[in-house]
Amino acid sequence: MTIKLSSSESVQKFFQEVSGFNNDQGSQRMKKLVNRILLDTIKIIEDLEVTTEEFWKAVDYLNRMGARGEAGLLVAGLGLEHYLDLLLDAQDEQAGLTGGTPRTIEGPLYVAGAPMSEGETRMDDGTDAGTVMFLQGQVKDAEGKPIAGAIVDLWHANTKGTYSYFDTTQSDYNLRRRIVTDSEGRYRARSIVPSGYGCPPDGTTQEVLNHLGRHGNRPAHIHFFISAPGYRHLTTQINLSGDEYLWDDFAYATRDGLVGEIRFTEDAAAAAARGAVDRFAEIDFDFQLQKAPSPEQESIRDRVRAEA
Amino acid sequence: MTIKLSSSESVQKFFQEVSGFNNDQGSQRMKKLVNRILLDTIKIIEDLEVTTEEFWKAVDYLNRMGARGEAGLLVAGLGLEHYLDLLLDAQDEQAGLTGGTPRTIEGPLYVAGAPMSEGETRMDDGTDAGTVMFLQGQVKDAEGKPIAGAIVDLWHANTKGTYSYFDTTQSDYNLRRRIVTDSEGRYRARSIVPSGYGCPPDGTTQEVLNHLGRHGNRPAHIHFFISAPGYRHLTTQINLSGDEYLWDDFAYATRDGLVGEIRFTEDAAAAAARGAVDRFAEIDFDFQLQKAPSPEQESIRDRVRAEA
Repeated sequence: MTIKLSSSESVQKFFQEVSGFNNDQGSQRMKKLVNRILLDTIKIIEDLEVTTEEFWKAVDYLNRMGARGEAGLLVAGLGLEHYLDLLLDAQDEQAGLTGGTPRTIEGPLYVAGAPMSEGETRMDDGTDAGTVMFLQGQVKDAEGKPIAGAIVDLWHANTKGTYSYFDTTQSDYNLRRRIVTDSEGRYRARSIVPSGYGCPPDGTTQEVLNHLGRHGNRPAHIHFFISAPGYRHLTTQINLSGDEYLWDDFAYATRDGLVGEIRFTEDAAAAAARGAVDRFAEIDFDFQLQKAPSPEQESIRDRVRAEA
Repeated sequence: MTIKLSSSESVQKFFQEVSGFNNDQGSQRMKKLVNRILLDTIKIIEDLEVTTEEFWKAVDYLNRMGARGEAGLLVAGLGLEHYLDLLLDAQDEQAGLTGGTPRTIEGPLYVAGAPMSEGETRMDDGTDAGTVMFLQGQVKDAEGKPIAGAIVDLWHANTKGTYSYFDTTQSDYNLRRRIVTDSEGRYRARSIVPSGYGCPPDGTTQEVLNHLGRHGNRPAHIHFFISAPGYRHLTTQINLSGDEYLWDDFAYATRDGLVGEIRFTEDAAAAAARGAVDRFAEIDFDFQLQKAPSPEQESIRDRVRAEA
């Protein structure tokens, strides 16, 4: 027979005390959140008859996950980061804020402070013999008018699917740049075609995915933060057409309107004319920004992010 | 107006996919647990209108907590470890397993493999000029008959409230010993009077307690694992009488029947006769074990524990 203590008055009172309801110090908001989390936790323990062994495995998991810094990767893999996008979309719809390029998850691998340049840039340091990729497009407003002076902050993986800073074998800010759009709202980047990211096979996120019978792969993609005075900050990604994981992303970031068509040109002469060898790739992708309903929406939402 | 996506069919289906319901690999148990945790999480986000900023603060907290290895300390401070004792007590009562010394929480600071000796031991390495403490007692069965050959595995803090292994300034296994009870079921230890433990002030557990308006202190106490063939393994503590935190323990481990009366003798001659200086302390504490209803109950429950 299952034991249900969670609804008893004594246990309810105990967790009120634990949550600091009996003192007037600290944060009312935090007390409310912690109390709810604790009551839901013990209800799960009772409803699913969680054993003490399972409980302590979970505690150990949290220590191991944090020691590897994988909490951000886990919430992506468990769909919570995508769910937050769905929630923001629903809030926008309720507020009548529709249109423009869809948002999608940031992921945990952004690094602030990438080199900034006007109009165009080269993103790779030349050490990765990947296929040269020319990426370009325009940043526009809701009416399709170009936005000059927008900042396109973009980052992507190398041909092994790993990111500079987190992959310490790469040079500083490799494949991370900020481009200020020109008078026609254009940005242009020369880089290399990224490979899809895969969760570290020995990591704590892949450990959970294995228990769930799931892979930990993402399609090849390019991350973007796009901002401009008077417009809403946009966090998004373009996911490259043709990738086997395009619609099977472990982090659920692929969305309609965010597939970047990649065109390969297999022509040694044409490649040589553009500074590449044998072949090259091109992607054109334009972004549309919404007007910011208030100035604070011009900035990215707070989140602890790496700084090099 | 609050947005409720969690009950929508599309979000329910999404988290079924996330939880691996659509594949037949992995662990059915883990899928069920993860799905429940995710659905409760998004319900909390919606009911309490958790902002994305709050969500990412929580993610960052988990990384920082794990990096410090404080998950075990947090679940003690949030009362979940004590709650598990209440649940085990209720299960015991339902099974008619009553009597004996009460259990209480283990805490996160046990280290396996402490030196073992017959009947008696000295626990301190002599470097801490604390008050000498003589601790002794009997291990008995439910009828009060002594149990010879029981293993009393005990550990406690030094006069600064810190534990060897975790406090790397202490010698190996300082204040950690295993004593095999003699033919009369007796154990005897010479040690030093411990001070109460306090959460690291710069740690992630104290950070949460501060938000809840709570302190992070425990009364002075001594931890015990007691085991003997044919008897249920007992995890408990004795909490020292007179401590200001005796009934105000941040980890809620103090229980009726677990207060150890500590007697101080301020008599230099008597102290000298027992190898102490100026004064000494004595504690007598007997333990009563329940018969093990099955052999696996003779062993401690699984939990990841430190090994020196």
